[in-house]
Amino acid sequence: MARTTGSFGERTEAAIREAAASLIARYGYEAVSMRRLAEEVGVQAAALYRYFPTKEELLFTLMREHMEALIASWQAADPAGRDEAQRLAAFVKNHIIFHVARRHSTHVSNMELRSLSPEKLTAILKLRTTYEKELRRILREGAAKGAFLVDDAELAAMAIIQMITGVIVWFRPDERLSVAEVADKYHTMTMRLVGARARAEA
Amino acid sequence: MARTTGSFGERTEAAIREAAASLIARYGYEAVSMRRLAEEVGVQAAALYRYFPTKEELLFTLMREHMEALIASWQAADPAGRDEAQRLAAFVKNHIIFHVARRHSTHVSNMELRSLSPEKLTAILKLRTTYEKELRRILREGAAKGAFLVDDAELAAMAIIQMITGVIVWFRPDERLSVAEVADKYHTMTMRLVGARARAEA
Repeated sequence: MARTTGSFGERTEAAIREAAASLIARYGYEAVSMRRLAEEVGVQAAALYRYFPTKEELLFTLMREHMEALIASWQAADPAGRDEAQRLAAFVKNHIIFHVARRHSTHVSNMELRSLSPEKLTAILKLRTTYEKELRRILREGAAKGAFLVDDAELAAMAIIQMITGVIVWFRPDERLSVAEVADKYHTMTMRLVGARARAEA
Repeated sequence: MARTTGSFGERTEAAIREAAASLIARYGYEAVSMRRLAEEVGVQAAALYRYFPTKEELLFTLMREHMEALIASWQAADPAGRDEAQRLAAFVKNHIIFHVARRHSTHVSNMELRSLSPEKLTAILKLRTTYEKELRRILREGAAKGAFLVDDAELAAMAIIQMITGVIVWFRPDERLSVAEVADKYHTMTMRLVGARARAEA
């Protein structure tokens, strides 16, 4: 019985998170009230506060889970031990596929850093750094081995992440390219950007 | 006398635009009321409505002027008649310098397309296309002459624009690099991305 209750609670919490990401992506965090959110999910405001005591707690949860899921998806996709060109290819593809599937929470994560208190902002930025460091390390190690031409790994990592996250701005799955084709083309551009030849094995 | 009145009006309108860009970048369009904006500028709400009859008109003006200024800055910076590598170098540098100097209106322009009515959205997207077409043409012409390796000029243009606009997310002028140094490094990365060698003349 507890399991069933738990599942109901989990489903409610997931519904709240999904509705919140969608509403905040559409109207911005400041404009979305807890009352409006409760209406959207179809629960009483009191129920909402049971899951998320404050609106900022809800925003923080969205952003923390987004980053934790991104890091976990990369850990699962990382062909650790393979060469840097293969790891970079995997990074680009995983990043694009992850973000295209999570358009709303990506928008919220990118736009609403401004709405976090300093302490929570620090926690989210720490997760971002953890993720970005993975890419910086791949770029540095590839450059050290002569596989990449990267003068400034920090800048190159920012450039690549912004380029590949930008896919969500224009990509629509019903248009001329599939997400796999887009990921392939961005992989080719990334390989050129880091001075490597695009390779067939990716 | 009319000139003086006009100038005062122009200064007021400029103050409104600046305050609006800053407030909307910070809180989002939905959350910023005309009343709050009037308070920020230090005018009566009635005065605000004289310049901008609706809040959407104000947002539209911000976004239209942002795009028109961007197009004008590129027309002034474009070394038309020079080769594509030089034109691309000029495009990247102009884009970065323009956006770093207009952080707030860039945020508003990128985030608040969602808040425009279909008709106004179409007008803004048309200006964007005008600008992006310039880059696509440079890439296509460079590729046709064998100067660039670009398989998909549309995608490459989006990738480059998102990469170089992304500078405003992390760049702060008091940090380790000047805007000119950042523009130089992004120029080098862009040249690699399009399969050209970075050249000394840029």
